[in-house]
Amino acid sequence: MQDATSPAELTSWNYNETGAREAIEAFVRGIENDGVDASERIAVFDNDGTLWSEKPNYFQADFVQYRKNLGQSVTEESMEVYHQAVLDWLQTAKHPTEGCLYTDLIYQPMLELLNYLRAHDFKTYIVSGGGIEFVRPWAEAAYGIPPEQVIGSNVRTAFRDDPPTIVRLPEPQNVAEEPKKLFYEQALFLDDKFGKPVGINAHIGRRPLAAFGNSDGDKQMLQWTTSGPGRRFGLLIHHTDKNREWQYDEPSDEGQLTQGTLDEAAAKGWTVVDMEKDWAHVSPPFPTADGTSV
Amino acid sequence: MQDATSPAELTSWNYNETGAREAIEAFVRGIENDGVDASERIAVFDNDGTLWSEKPNYFQADFVQYRKNLGQSVTEESMEVYHQAVLDWLQTAKHPTEGCLYTDLIYQPMLELLNYLRAHDFKTYIVSGGGIEFVRPWAEAAYGIPPEQVIGSNVRTAFRDDPPTIVRLPEPQNVAEEPKKLFYEQALFLDDKFGKPVGINAHIGRRPLAAFGNSDGDKQMLQWTTSGPGRRFGLLIHHTDKNREWQYDEPSDEGQLTQGTLDEAAAKGWTVVDMEKDWAHVSPPFPTADGTSV
Repeated sequence: MQDATSPAELTSWNYNETGAREAIEAFVRGIENDGVDASERIAVFDNDGTLWSEKPNYFQADFVQYRKNLGQSVTEESMEVYHQAVLDWLQTAKHPTEGCLYTDLIYQPMLELLNYLRAHDFKTYIVSGGGIEFVRPWAEAAYGIPPEQVIGSNVRTAFRDDPPTIVRLPEPQNVAEEPKKLFYEQALFLDDKFGKPVGINAHIGRRPLAAFGNSDGDKQMLQWTTSGPGRRFGLLIHHTDKNREWQYDEPSDEGQLTQGTLDEAAAKGWTVVDMEKDWAHVSPPFPTADGTSV
Repeated sequence: MQDATSPAELTSWNYNETGAREAIEAFVRGIENDGVDASERIAVFDNDGTLWSEKPNYFQADFVQYRKNLGQSVTEESMEVYHQAVLDWLQTAKHPTEGCLYTDLIYQPMLELLNYLRAHDFKTYIVSGGGIEFVRPWAEAAYGIPPEQVIGSNVRTAFRDDPPTIVRLPEPQNVAEEPKKLFYEQALFLDDKFGKPVGINAHIGRRPLAAFGNSDGDKQMLQWTTSGPGRRFGLLIHHTDKNREWQYDEPSDEGQLTQGTLDEAAAKGWTVVDMEKDWAHVSPPFPTADGTSV
């Protein structure tokens, strides 16, 4: 698993390509020059396709399939047991086509970007369409993001008092049965598309200054972030790099990025990263023939 | 509105009464001696009856009644509008029996306790049975607690994209109509009783080390907090002070504290504050005959 000791500068980002590196640095300089209060410096990051890869399947989908193959039931399960299952899987499971650990497919340029923003007093959050509890157990070691700064989708969760435990639950078969009791539970929530600004508001209670994503699922998060007053920043990563990562936009089962969203990005001044051109390195797990990382 | 400039010591707490002050200080010394990592130092506080008063009605209930009296509708409303309404009300509305501002009824000893814990690297959270968005707009000025560290109940909330806005909504009349769309919304959630550990897990993703409450509604939060491994602390404020504040436990429409919960506190070693004995001062708005604060 990667540590969070990457440089706090955008050393894996190229100058003089699409202008993405220049745009990020200009935004951060602007925030510094404006003297924006540190409490307002909030940056939100999608996870799948933004901080790590999402091909050929969302990595969490592979985990779900792995557990299904083990014959594990979908009844009540404590959060601790679930977290440990995630950690065990990440430490051993191999990516189906790359053969490396899934966490080896974290993007080096994004680790640098996280550190760069933190060095300028930004608080960095993950806002994942994936499960909040799938990301929390390893986000601090991998990204330097503590569990309270991870936002994501959730299954139904409840508290059991004997012994005191938080549990994950299947959806209720009959909501009408005990509707009042359900209000003490977290309901199923999809932290994707229209859900992302809702999840951000629920957890942070402020509109972020900067949002980073890669797909249509991030559009509303960028809309909400960049339409606030003052200096704002929106960025989409376009997966253009078939040699070092994957090349896709529309159509795609994972991280679809449609022309409509790219058009909106152009109209609203969101930065679009061309991964092939803008990133000098992608991540450690893509070695060249002589064993060095590209 | 009070600022957060109270001392970072428990100067409004008496020694040699029930031992509450001694117990708090022993816990914090223990955490320091154990060398517990700062990231794990999380303390959660109920709001009504724990950080400010809750009589003769929960203060938010007075706000809701005030808005009803204005004839305001309960249809879709942006979060910004709601926040401003809360702030306007708090700056002008008078408490029905004390005649002061509601925020004048914040407990001075608890402001000191918040600062004391922060001085020892604790991150302090509010975990309110009241509305998360009712507390957020003023919690930073009043308690030094930023919006992202406020947890509470929520009504249904959703994102609208034209213009990009978070809105508060009445409950859906017919859940079956658009069930999938609802998953992109926050569902009604009661951050009380069994809901408190669920809310804490959803927002923080870790079990706190210390929990502070005053009623049966806080029992599960204390159970979950104090049953974790290592050094833990649970505290209940018993409202025993009919002269300087209010005297109540069971029965009570607000903040009921039953004998069963007091028995559990005794059995589990939770600290029970006797407000009359343990607090040298309650809060600024209870002046003595000569105009000084008691």
